[in-house]
Amino acid sequence: MPTIQTQVPLPPLKDLTDDNITENTVIVNNQSSSPRLRYLFNRLVTHLHDFAREVRLSEEEWIAAIMFLTACGQICTDTRQEFILLSDVLGLSCLVDAMNHPKPANGTAGTVLGPFHTHDALEFEQGESICSSGKGEPALVRCKVTDTSGNPLAGVSVDIWETDETGHYDTQYADRAGPDCRGILTTDREGRITFKAIRPVSYPIPHDGPVGKLLERLGRHPYRPAHMHFKFIKDGFDVLVTSLYIRGDAYETTDAVFGVKSSLIVDLEHISDEDLAQEYELSPEDWLLEYDFVLVSDQEATELKIKNAERALKTLGVTVAVVDGLPIDAIE
Amino acid sequence: MPTIQTQVPLPPLKDLTDDNITENTVIVNNQSSSPRLRYLFNRLVTHLHDFAREVRLSEEEWIAAIMFLTACGQICTDTRQEFILLSDVLGLSCLVDAMNHPKPANGTAGTVLGPFHTHDALEFEQGESICSSGKGEPALVRCKVTDTSGNPLAGVSVDIWETDETGHYDTQYADRAGPDCRGILTTDREGRITFKAIRPVSYPIPHDGPVGKLLERLGRHPYRPAHMHFKFIKDGFDVLVTSLYIRGDAYETTDAVFGVKSSLIVDLEHISDEDLAQEYELSPEDWLLEYDFVLVSDQEATELKIKNAERALKTLGVTVAVVDGLPIDAIE
Repeated sequence: MPTIQTQVPLPPLKDLTDDNITENTVIVNNQSSSPRLRYLFNRLVTHLHDFAREVRLSEEEWIAAIMFLTACGQICTDTRQEFILLSDVLGLSCLVDAMNHPKPANGTAGTVLGPFHTHDALEFEQGESICSSGKGEPALVRCKVTDTSGNPLAGVSVDIWETDETGHYDTQYADRAGPDCRGILTTDREGRITFKAIRPVSYPIPHDGPVGKLLERLGRHPYRPAHMHFKFIKDGFDVLVTSLYIRGDAYETTDAVFGVKSSLIVDLEHISDEDLAQEYELSPEDWLLEYDFVLVSDQEATELKIKNAERALKTLGVTVAVVDGLPIDAIE
Repeated sequence: MPTIQTQVPLPPLKDLTDDNITENTVIVNNQSSSPRLRYLFNRLVTHLHDFAREVRLSEEEWIAAIMFLTACGQICTDTRQEFILLSDVLGLSCLVDAMNHPKPANGTAGTVLGPFHTHDALEFEQGESICSSGKGEPALVRCKVTDTSGNPLAGVSVDIWETDETGHYDTQYADRAGPDCRGILTTDREGRITFKAIRPVSYPIPHDGPVGKLLERLGRHPYRPAHMHFKFIKDGFDVLVTSLYIRGDAYETTDAVFGVKSSLIVDLEHISDEDLAQEYELSPEDWLLEYDFVLVSDQEATELKIKNAERALKTLGVTVAVVDGLPIDAIE
């Protein structure tokens, strides 16, 4: 580690007590050359200490928290992310998503990414199935993607992922050979994608680890209602991470990770139309899921994000410099 | 996982946004049957969300935090605790210690435990050395332990640990064969312990991991001033975890973990007295460290802790039930 030279005048950091530790920790962190990092750690340390002070955190609770965080870290692997799960069940993921991807009234709502997105999904042609044969109850999915003015968007990369019929993602199998029940399609000239998948099912988030034990202590169930994940990417548009939820699910109003939005709940119908079923080598009894997605332009999203940030900071009474919607500590 | 039955009426947890996610997360956590856990998670979720809202936490920062916590967990071993180190450098350990072990004016100040205490220290007789031969510059340590009325306390278990002359604890060596530079003595009838150790040196906390990288980003050095750790245990008395710091250390006023207190800074002198040196098979040029410790009774500590909690909560404007100094959420 290089010797660190700073220009911040430090008071003597000794004789620190519960009354003066916070201001002194903030001062020593202000040696950072990054105005954003200074602001982040000012607020982090202040809230962390205020939390401990308000609850009079006991040593037993402190060490339990240390051990909990350690267990979360140690159970993580390339395909399991316990801290994202923790962020999800504490409502932080929902909050971060809402702040970072605000939507105008006519944009499709976003929702939590969750810990099961991967970067190895294969590309599929229109009409193909993203699930290997023999999985679940077949469903035909037909979507259209437009901008907020209703213009079809061609060439949108749409990443889709869901569990198999047992409620497990491919990454949850120790013998995973490759991606399954996930795939990427590109919208055609009319902004459409059509693919085959399976009927989504409700499932518990992984609850054999520390986050599962926490939910149990909190008296909470670990279930998510049936849903299919979507991620839309196109130059000039804000990335849309969302999911479609199947109406009538037992967990529709108690999603363990707070992801459900009314506007994302869809009716799952039978295909019925024999010609349509035949076109995709399906039966009329198989399922049909249809939804039109509306992407928000980068410009719309950025303007809204900055506007929301300024309004929120004003409401909170925070008066600091804001750069690109991010408050900073501009001391110098 | 058993099916969880709760009596808490839950509102429909959907359509959650940055404006309503906090209250709803608190409500769902209120299904816990533990009033203390309900209060802890109410305050935890509120502060976590308020932090994210105030800083407008970006997705890049959120995932950086997820990855940081994961790295902290993954570097932990039986002998390395990165989350305690994180708690130390963020000032949380100092705060938790101060709240849990308040001292009356005449009690010896406590300070951070740190991540290097072990439970395998050997017991030593009076006059023995807790360091294997060949380590550092020899020092004779003579301490007396009394209660707050000045009465000597016999039979106090005193756990001592320090680094070797290179600034490393025994646990930091991959080939550690057993405890070294640590040991347990018991006070005699006059409340005294006398043992041989080595002159403490300043050293960096482990900074090859995520916490070290964080300190670097914050412009902070990772050093602790030279010190020797002590932990005192006796029935009827509050456990005292403290350290003695050697006056004049370059890091005396910038301890990376906020542990230094003026009352714990001691002068390290040469033994000088030839008879004393000879008694312990040392040279008059070797070092002498002397300190009298004052333990606080369980009753004194508990009364002070409850008084401080009530005062602090009043100052914070928190009006909740308090049981044994710990605020709880008594809703039912």
